[in-house]
Amino acid sequence: MSRTEEHRSPCPIATTLDIVGDRWTLVILRDLINGKRRYSDFLASPERITTNILADRLSKMEEAGLVNRRLYQERPRRYEYQLTRKGAGLHPVLCGMCDWANQHYPGTWVAPEKFRLFQPD
Amino acid sequence: MSRTEEHRSPCPIATTLDIVGDRWTLVILRDLINGKRRYSDFLASPERITTNILADRLSKMEEAGLVNRRLYQERPRRYEYQLTRKGAGLHPVLCGMCDWANQHYPGTWVAPEKFRLFQPD
Repeated sequence: MSRTEEHRSPCPIATTLDIVGDRWTLVILRDLINGKRRYSDFLASPERITTNILADRLSKMEEAGLVNRRLYQERPRRYEYQLTRKGAGLHPVLCGMCDWANQHYPGTWVAPEKFRLFQPD
Repeated sequence: MSRTEEHRSPCPIATTLDIVGDRWTLVILRDLINGKRRYSDFLASPERITTNILADRLSKMEEAGLVNRRLYQERPRRYEYQLTRKGAGLHPVLCGMCDWANQHYPGTWVAPEKFRLFQPD
């Protein structure tokens, strides 16, 4: 996908924020890196995302190519979500956030090695 | 500053997004790294931030300790903004966004070396 008119400018920072510039998308991406795939998993995270916001963000993440959706149950229809390589490519951004918060907000969790060393399939 | 109850969880990613998780804050931070300090400078950026959003974000950035405000003119009162070390510490997050967008959105700008090699004073 190339840059389109829907982005505010050709700046790579603004372009990235057009896609993940909100309070929730990168929290969901964190959960996906940690192996979560289903609504109930995301809803169980300590930030207590609401179902409405979760559905909205997953839909936008799929549209942006950050996740793939897969039907895993027919009745009722249930989907699970898997990071794409494009989505997984944001891992360094998350690690940068971890470093920054750990330095400036004592008491924040230190990311486990499994998260730090994450490599996409 | 330590983590406070205003943050959603002790997760360092969620904590960072509580502060910079929107479409504009990191765009302003980019401008500050590029040497911009005044309202008119920020308003001139290609993303066309509005004065209301700019004022709101600069106020929140000051409150979070990302910038310092300095009066540079008395009548009318005008302020300029300077990155703190804490604010400058988000530079690696911005570089991660540049790498990601450059890879996935051909046509986005490549950050100049001056930006890449930025070091806080």
